[in-house]
Amino acid sequence: MKTLIIISHPEIKESSSQQYLLHSIPSDHEITIRHLEEQYSNKPIDVSEEQKILAAHDRIIFQFPLYWYSSPALLKQWQDEVLTDDFAYGKKGNQLKDKEFALVLLVGAAKTDYQAGGKELYSIDELTKPFQAMAHKTGMIFLKTFSIHQFVYMTEEEKMTLLIDYQLFLTNDADPSFLSREKWVLNQLEKTDLSSLGIGSEEKLQHVVEMIEENRETMDDLKLLLDDMN
Amino acid sequence: MKTLIIISHPEIKESSSQQYLLHSIPSDHEITIRHLEEQYSNKPIDVSEEQKILAAHDRIIFQFPLYWYSSPALLKQWQDEVLTDDFAYGKKGNQLKDKEFALVLLVGAAKTDYQAGGKELYSIDELTKPFQAMAHKTGMIFLKTFSIHQFVYMTEEEKMTLLIDYQLFLTNDADPSFLSREKWVLNQLEKTDLSSLGIGSEEKLQHVVEMIEENRETMDDLKLLLDDMN
Repeated sequence: MKTLIIISHPEIKESSSQQYLLHSIPSDHEITIRHLEEQYSNKPIDVSEEQKILAAHDRIIFQFPLYWYSSPALLKQWQDEVLTDDFAYGKKGNQLKDKEFALVLLVGAAKTDYQAGGKELYSIDELTKPFQAMAHKTGMIFLKTFSIHQFVYMTEEEKMTLLIDYQLFLTNDADPSFLSREKWVLNQLEKTDLSSLGIGSEEKLQHVVEMIEENRETMDDLKLLLDDMN
Repeated sequence: MKTLIIISHPEIKESSSQQYLLHSIPSDHEITIRHLEEQYSNKPIDVSEEQKILAAHDRIIFQFPLYWYSSPALLKQWQDEVLTDDFAYGKKGNQLKDKEFALVLLVGAAKTDYQAGGKELYSIDELTKPFQAMAHKTGMIFLKTFSIHQFVYMTEEEKMTLLIDYQLFLTNDADPSFLSREKWVLNQLEKTDLSSLGIGSEEKLQHVVEMIEENRETMDDLKLLLDDMN
């Protein structure tokens, strides 16, 4: 499966969360990264080039920091210019049909702020309806949103879990079973470049692997028990 | 009451609906119009100037064509740069508090497309949650959205009604009573420059005035009857 990550962030080099995600992207999968501000800071968007790239991928991801409950301006401009009605919708526009679409959001406020009675009033799923409507209009399958809240306050352990979840999100089934998820994680962790992720990561990783293997033993025991009962 | 209309439209001169609305704006009220693309097509947004203008008005209106279920890119950029946390929200940012906020949307598809089972899937109120959340965060009062669907297919009579509703929306109470609305309409119609609105408008207008006056007589009769019954 070919995954395209379209990143919009006006100051990506200053963003520790974006840098962390960039370093987490596995290199052995077919993943294309496009950072719009790097590509188009001072020149017009190359519409036919962008459409060609879109058409060549199976899963399209918009990754951006949530600014005023939506994307940075350049991603909006990209939508308005690239998703034309002979390409993305309308009678002749079916180039995105049946592809998967997802959002990866970096959010400054806590998850609990995004609810009725919370500081931000609405849930992330309510606020991203314009993107859901876009997926609907273009015939794409909208996957669950991957929201990362308050990255700067995360512990090393939470960041490690984030890394695993993010890699899984990029490359695996939209809704993996527990078993396939476990297999994938063990497989994937071996290949991750840990040096870029900060000191102490290696020990944390070993801990995660041990935890998964322990879980596996418990699961196997349970399965034997169930087999006996039948 | 001072009203500020912030318009975002990349091709406003080619838009018959925007031109119609621009010509409909009454000149005898305190209404400021800012067209962002005209102001800032090739230069950076003047944040302190924009903040000064915002602070000097009581009702803020965003007027734009709905592109991919949201605003054109420049208005998004304006939001991200102008609505800073020392101005619009946060501990020291209370400059927008208690102002009224509203959206005027030009929409290409029919109103009935914007619902569950409809072509666009979600209602306008669902799709504009990011703006509602913005109003909430900045302490502004979110007024009912003024959506204009499929302007190009409107009859002259529908356009005339639109003109009245739009003027009322810009200058009157957020939720006017029938009586104040009637009084306002009669008062306002006398002052409208009809020559800019197209041939036949004057007859249509006369018709509207007569209708309102007839209604008034019926209402007065009903009131007499009610008084007799008490």
